[in-house]
Amino acid sequence: MRVVLTGFEPFGGDGTNPSWDAVRLVAEQYAAAGSPGGYELVVAELPCEFGRSLDVLRELVGTHAPDVVVCVGQAGGRTGVTPERVAVNLDDARIPDNAGDQPIDVPVVEGGPTAYFGTLPVKACVEALHEADIPASVSHTAGTFVCNHVFYGLMHLAATEFPQLRGGFVHVPYAPGQGHEDAPSLPVETTARALSLIIHTTVTRTTDLHTTAGALH
Amino acid sequence: MRVVLTGFEPFGGDGTNPSWDAVRLVAEQYAAAGSPGGYELVVAELPCEFGRSLDVLRELVGTHAPDVVVCVGQAGGRTGVTPERVAVNLDDARIPDNAGDQPIDVPVVEGGPTAYFGTLPVKACVEALHEADIPASVSHTAGTFVCNHVFYGLMHLAATEFPQLRGGFVHVPYAPGQGHEDAPSLPVETTARALSLIIHTTVTRTTDLHTTAGALH
Amino acid sequence: MRVVLTGFEPFGGDGTNPSWDAVRLVAEQYAAAGSPGGYELVVAELPCEFGRSLDVLRELVGTHAPDVVVCVGQAGGRTGVTPERVAVNLDDARIPDNAGDQPIDVPVVEGGPTAYFGTLPVKACVEALHEADIPASVSHTAGTFVCNHVFYGLMHLAATEFPQLRGGFVHVPYAPGQGHEDAPSLPVETTARALSLIIHTTVTRTTDLHTTAGALH
Amino acid sequence: MRVVLTGFEPFGGDGTNPSWDAVRLVAEQYAAAGSPGGYELVVAELPCEFGRSLDVLRELVGTHAPDVVVCVGQAGGRTGVTPERVAVNLDDARIPDNAGDQPIDVPVVEGGPTAYFGTLPVKACVEALHEADIPASVSHTAGTFVCNHVFYGLMHLAATEFPQLRGGFVHVPYAPGQGHEDAPSLPVETTARALSLIIHTTVTRTTDLHTTAGALH
Repeated sequence: MRVVLTGFEPFGGDGTNPSWDAVRLVAEQYAAAGSPGGYELVVAELPCEFGRSLDVLRELVGTHAPDVVVCVGQAGGRTGVTPERVAVNLDDARIPDNAGDQPIDVPVVEGGPTAYFGTLPVKACVEALHEADIPASVSHTAGTFVCNHVFYGLMHLAATEFPQLRGGFVHVPYAPGQGHEDAPSLPVETTARALSLIIHTTVTRTTDLHTTAGALH
Repeated sequence: MRVVLTGFEPFGGDGTNPSWDAVRLVAEQYAAAGSPGGYELVVAELPCEFGRSLDVLRELVGTHAPDVVVCVGQAGGRTGVTPERVAVNLDDARIPDNAGDQPIDVPVVEGGPTAYFGTLPVKACVEALHEADIPASVSHTAGTFVCNHVFYGLMHLAATEFPQLRGGFVHVPYAPGQGHEDAPSLPVETTARALSLIIHTTVTRTTDLHTTAGALH
Repeated sequence: MRVVLTGFEPFGGDGTNPSWDAVRLVAEQYAAAGSPGGYELVVAELPCEFGRSLDVLRELVGTHAPDVVVCVGQAGGRTGVTPERVAVNLDDARIPDNAGDQPIDVPVVEGGPTAYFGTLPVKACVEALHEADIPASVSHTAGTFVCNHVFYGLMHLAATEFPQLRGGFVHVPYAPGQGHEDAPSLPVETTARALSLIIHTTVTRTTDLHTTAGALH
Repeated sequence: MRVVLTGFEPFGGDGTNPSWDAVRLVAEQYAAAGSPGGYELVVAELPCEFGRSLDVLRELVGTHAPDVVVCVGQAGGRTGVTPERVAVNLDDARIPDNAGDQPIDVPVVEGGPTAYFGTLPVKACVEALHEADIPASVSHTAGTFVCNHVFYGLMHLAATEFPQLRGGFVHVPYAPGQGHEDAPSLPVETTARALSLIIHTTVTRTTDLHTTAGALH
């Protein structure tokens, strides 16, 4: 089995992005441990650009033919690790991306469906994180910036060209040293442990739990 | 022009629901002022039940043939009035509804599309609230409880049976006296003023602003 | 009876400060209503400077010989109007003040007591705000910036030179249009109504309620 | 050198209290590592009772004659580990303690000073936590419940009977599995690591850093 795990480069004036810092750490630890999960792990850093991010992702999928793709991004202000449940066909950028583009009310894919559900076992993943004492919950919005753009693009790829591919998106909190001192944060090491558990959960089960992970609003 | 505005009954152990308190106040103030907006306003309280809420909504739409429907619900913990942009075809109840039902991972409408966008001019509404010094932003998730259920059901009605109907959902914060003292809240009077402005904005314009109201996550 | 009510000028890069905007509105409304409370109201804008703020305050107290002094400042991120209970003899500035000074671990008054309690009926004030449907709670820290500096200086003045003077500090949330869109906020008009109620409560009673307004942490 | 480190028993309906869970883990890890810091570590669980908590603390101090005392308590809703800077001479209990007592507006020590500053190097501690990628900040209020009661009582003991004793209080966030799913939390293991670093920092230095750790409000 082959797993592609991506993080993002920094954006919005920050010097680091904990999504990529954590993804890189996952790869280091997995290699150092001798790939104990039995799957091949490919990691990559995506540009925080509406234009190029999906080009890079498509090339990763084409090159590696992964069984599972997990894209990871930063969600500043969230208190835990949050697997996303739904991607929306909407770009609405509050700030310019790293290439200076700021699309407003444009679909990710012209003519695509309004939304896709991700296909990771998000409830089983959250349960695994809770058992490991890591704050986590299912999220029902990935926003309307590059993260949602990549998530929608990934699920559209799976829906149209790679039907065997299971994929999803995970948002992670700030890291402590990142300069957002009033906001919640998690050590990068904890976030990396969470991502490893999400991959492990995904490769070892194909169905999700039938428990509630709903949001009242 | 005819407008239907709904709020919800209390749920989750609360004694009041600011959505209905505010909707009722909107109706009182509009009637007392002699219906100055030139539209007919019908208000109703929806049951906080997956089963009956859409029955009641459908009957309201069938009876009154409204041009605009705005459903309002409480979003405890939010800091402002938040018009919703997207409804998802998913019921996942964290707690039982007022009839004791707790659907998990069930579609609102079997075979319906994954999501609908609302058709209110949400950005123009938020701008009108900001001009009135009321905290507001566009939201991209209405959750997976009865609020999202009603929103999705409303947009499905519009898509399948009432093509002229414009509709949407607005989440409102707690009220100060409601017993959630650590959470953000708004006076019911302020929330009512916000809803009046949302209706006024909706009936006086048919297109939305082309400004960003996006979320980074 | 004479009441001095102060707000602060903007600081930290903001273009406005809701504390002064609300104080000014209180004065306008009180004058327009013909001073219905029977007290004389003097308002002033304090500089957001460690050095000059207490000079200005001392001159206000010397000139007007007020019975009550209420100083008001902005507490960005708070969800309601928060009368402060305790002032601490500590300046520790996270950012420079408007004069460029940034004292670190310096007492407000060399040799002064570690802290003073304010002498407003803070619990009765919070109850009055709750009855008016305005979010409010008692706070037990005014921070270590210019707000706490002024609060401590005021209580030290009362303790050492003006024993008849009753005084205190009230922190207020951001206003909606201020540029902190993810933070809680209150309309300036609501904040002004709150300040009017706090003055009214203070001038019409001399003892506080015996109810809890405590914080678990 | 001898260090006393205390946590609290659960309160407010919770089944666990991460302060004690983390303190116990610190002791286990320190013993398992062969007491590498060269100090003797004594840990104890304090009752969450206004009446008995200080009796137990006084007995611990009398029995063990510690050089350093660090009391730890839970601060539900905080996003990081927060060494406290100031204890206030005020009990104002929002809820009854575990013995059913609910003091309102009573001093911790009749006739004591309004407040004490703690004597841990709180800024150096926070810096050590940041270097370890753990979210942390200095807090300027320990509330008015049993935590502040114990903190004030400890500093009063030091001021009146044990002048060599250095002491302070540290508030810690919820743990992930504790049942407050919408609130920030930290793994107990991370909190334990933080407490170990706070003890290490305190026993290896006697003066604090001269850097700002101030709060704007």
